[in-house]
Amino acid sequence: MPKRASAHVAFQGERGAYSEIAARRFFGEAIDLLPCESFDLVFRSVETRKVDAGIVPIENSQAGCIHQNYDLLLKHRLRIVGELNLRVEHNLIAHPGATLRSIRTVFSHPQALMQCQSNTAKLKDVKIVAAYDTAGSVKKIKEENLQDAAAIASELAARTYGMKILRKGMQDSPENFTRFLILRKTRLEPPEANKTSLVFSLKNEPGALFRSLSVFALRDIDLYKIESRPLHGKPWEYFFYIDFAGSPKEANCRNALAHLGEMATFLKVLGSYPRDPRKF
Amino acid sequence: MPKRASAHVAFQGERGAYSEIAARRFFGEAIDLLPCESFDLVFRSVETRKVDAGIVPIENSQAGCIHQNYDLLLKHRLRIVGELNLRVEHNLIAHPGATLRSIRTVFSHPQALMQCQSNTAKLKDVKIVAAYDTAGSVKKIKEENLQDAAAIASELAARTYGMKILRKGMQDSPENFTRFLILRKTRLEPPEANKTSLVFSLKNEPGALFRSLSVFALRDIDLYKIESRPLHGKPWEYFFYIDFAGSPKEANCRNALAHLGEMATFLKVLGSYPRDPRKF
Repeated sequence: MPKRASAHVAFQGERGAYSEIAARRFFGEAIDLLPCESFDLVFRSVETRKVDAGIVPIENSQAGCIHQNYDLLLKHRLRIVGELNLRVEHNLIAHPGATLRSIRTVFSHPQALMQCQSNTAKLKDVKIVAAYDTAGSVKKIKEENLQDAAAIASELAARTYGMKILRKGMQDSPENFTRFLILRKTRLEPPEANKTSLVFSLKNEPGALFRSLSVFALRDIDLYKIESRPLHGKPWEYFFYIDFAGSPKEANCRNALAHLGEMATFLKVLGSYPRDPRKF
Repeated sequence: MPKRASAHVAFQGERGAYSEIAARRFFGEAIDLLPCESFDLVFRSVETRKVDAGIVPIENSQAGCIHQNYDLLLKHRLRIVGELNLRVEHNLIAHPGATLRSIRTVFSHPQALMQCQSNTAKLKDVKIVAAYDTAGSVKKIKEENLQDAAAIASELAARTYGMKILRKGMQDSPENFTRFLILRKTRLEPPEANKTSLVFSLKNEPGALFRSLSVFALRDIDLYKIESRPLHGKPWEYFFYIDFAGSPKEANCRNALAHLGEMATFLKVLGSYPRDPRKF
């Protein structure tokens, strides 16, 4: 049997990042990975066809939307072709020789540090140090042989670098989910697409948003998400981000999008894709 | 002339925090301040009448909504009585004797570090350390007489602790605004209230959100903001946060809220207050 070509996927962070876990869940274990320094580089790697796909976080149940990635979706000509909801489990990870009492420094990405604020505050005489990456902090502990430091990162990061988990469940809220988007340079939508993401803006008129939502409601199209975001430099104008049930291959969704196009001053369909049925 | 009693206002952070700047802008300079360790303590200080009012950030143009404070608004019986939009200007602040080249460590709150990621990355051989507070990092530099450290914080923090600004405009995006809410334990709404914030949830039915927005649209009530947030543990249900133009002292707004109450499975008016006309 011919060997199945594996996908080449870009993600932000070091090996062992939460994005890598999401990529493995989505594409399977037979995957080639390109770790990138920045989200921007993930987008550019997909755009220049250096990789087949990219995966980026778009929303966290604690921190809300990652506006930077919405901005990059507006800037680049990529399509969302999938989504994945990942439960985030933060671990306190250290050198195999270290113990909880020997830890004097805890490294992690600022976002992870914020999500573990109460639990890290309970550690005595410990300095909390912001690093550029969760998994990168585990890598640092390994490479610099730090016996008195720990990192907050994924179980995969501990496994990737052969480090030890000192404590599981470091996140303050057990309900910590991140929604990831899978991006490709394509104009095709996956055949099983049943969810569509779009962004649009409207003239600043009373009732404008209500009229724009009528294009979905009058066609019995359900909404999963709506968010308004002020447009900077244009104090009275907003972007609206909407996720709805269905895809443009269905006539009612095509019609709804055409109808919305009549009203919107700007409209971009970011992609249609199979909905992840796991809760966000 | 009798001396005018000044307001006693709680905020999260150390003296010199961005919340203190917002409090001074809102209440004037003749203000008594209670710095609090946590947002929760700000809410509790207002609830127990230890202070007259509290001020908390609710939304940042870069980071999005501060969900924790929405949760605290749901939990506590306080009212929003005002809002203030503040442009956030991050500065690199150090000891008067320090120079840019002598800095080896930069302290700040994880959120501020994230907002200054590109600019701090340009500093050579510098360790980025997360601290519990922006202004608290400046205080630490003063109290521990740290000559090789800097903090990212407000100009007010530099002035408060007599430290020096090494570099202004450390934030990566010049368009960095935070919206603050002013909270009181009261049932009265300010006479000039022209904006109302509320949170509600709906039965999970197609078109439910559209019907709920009709209570505003059919009465020509304009919306400033809408955001859906998944309700954890109830995968198909959402909270909706809405800010609308007007207040319940107007009959059409009262009627809209009563109408919304007929549909909503949960509804809480968080308060009516004078809108800050400065852009967010």
